[in-house]
Amino acid sequence: MEANQGRRPRTSRARGGYAVGDERRTRILDAAVEHYAQWGFHASSLARIAKDVGVTQGGLLHHFRSKEDLLVSVLERSDEQDVERFFAAEPASAADCFRTLVDLAAHNAGRPGRVRMFNVLAAEAGSPGHPAHAYFERRYRDVLDHVSGALRRGVDSGELRPDTDGEQTAREIAAVMDGLQLQWALDTTGFDMAERLRAYLDRLLRVLAA
Amino acid sequence: MEANQGRRPRTSRARGGYAVGDERRTRILDAAVEHYAQWGFHASSLARIAKDVGVTQGGLLHHFRSKEDLLVSVLERSDEQDVERFFAAEPASAADCFRTLVDLAAHNAGRPGRVRMFNVLAAEAGSPGHPAHAYFERRYRDVLDHVSGALRRGVDSGELRPDTDGEQTAREIAAVMDGLQLQWALDTTGFDMAERLRAYLDRLLRVLAA
Repeated sequence: MEANQGRRPRTSRARGGYAVGDERRTRILDAAVEHYAQWGFHASSLARIAKDVGVTQGGLLHHFRSKEDLLVSVLERSDEQDVERFFAAEPASAADCFRTLVDLAAHNAGRPGRVRMFNVLAAEAGSPGHPAHAYFERRYRDVLDHVSGALRRGVDSGELRPDTDGEQTAREIAAVMDGLQLQWALDTTGFDMAERLRAYLDRLLRVLAA
Repeated sequence: MEANQGRRPRTSRARGGYAVGDERRTRILDAAVEHYAQWGFHASSLARIAKDVGVTQGGLLHHFRSKEDLLVSVLERSDEQDVERFFAAEPASAADCFRTLVDLAAHNAGRPGRVRMFNVLAAEAGSPGHPAHAYFERRYRDVLDHVSGALRRGVDSGELRPDTDGEQTAREIAAVMDGLQLQWALDTTGFDMAERLRAYLDRLLRVLAA
């Protein structure tokens, strides 16, 4: 027993303990991604998500106070994972930033459910009353700041031309990524999303290079 | 009476005639655009759309057989209007094609409801079971054919470099347009969508020029 003690400490607790709760919480979040991807936020129902996971609606509400709380939790978890994996370090150059964006696109090509969910919720959030409206406003601000910061440092280091417009170029890059995701979700075998992004960013870097 | 006879011939018919029917049909289609934009297809309801227009659900079903029929009718009318206005003539050059795309973006900046509807339905249609899935597959095919055709003719005429990849470049252009629409719907006063597209296409044309 000693040797195994540190491995899955939480599952050694009684039924209903932290581990079971965490695992159930994760399954609810995963199911919600698929429901939002297929039905959108408004037509998704807590009752159907709970049923898919095999819990009661009351059980679901133990983890997430409301439909809106579940939505924000799904989005925040999704971002946390991506930030940790792709955006934890400040890119050393514009070229370095662009490589990371291509890596992210390649990663996304392996999770069509997540891509479809993002497409649908980002589109729905265009309505000012949508519960994810403020979230997506902030998210685009963060993405634009991250990319335009890398472009500005590229100008400062002499990597990029001094007249590079970091903010507007970052907006264009975000548009290419989102627009490719929209096309790709319709036809996931029709083209290579990461290669398309790479070709665009390679050309952009050649034009912007000092 | 003679002088007025040709002006509004349909309204001279009895109540319930073609003119009243056409006008009601148009109001239903307009209301549906706003409902899809705000709620998505699945959470939109024929009963609520009918209520907004001031007709009964039965009255709505007189014009559109089903929820899916109304969806397809909204999309087809939207496309017909755009095709007539922007894509009736084959562009004489890549530069000509790009100018038309900027005109379309400027036109779209005047109709946020239509833009939000397009964003939401295109995103939802990524799910293979969505009633607009086939429609959006065909629509992207048409857009890619139109733009890649203009690029290929640009190569043939000596306007563009011979190694221009029409298909992949068209995909990128569509992505920029859609991605900008997604950002713009979240913040319609934050940036000029048509100017952003123009800056992108101007740079692209310089790179592709023979």
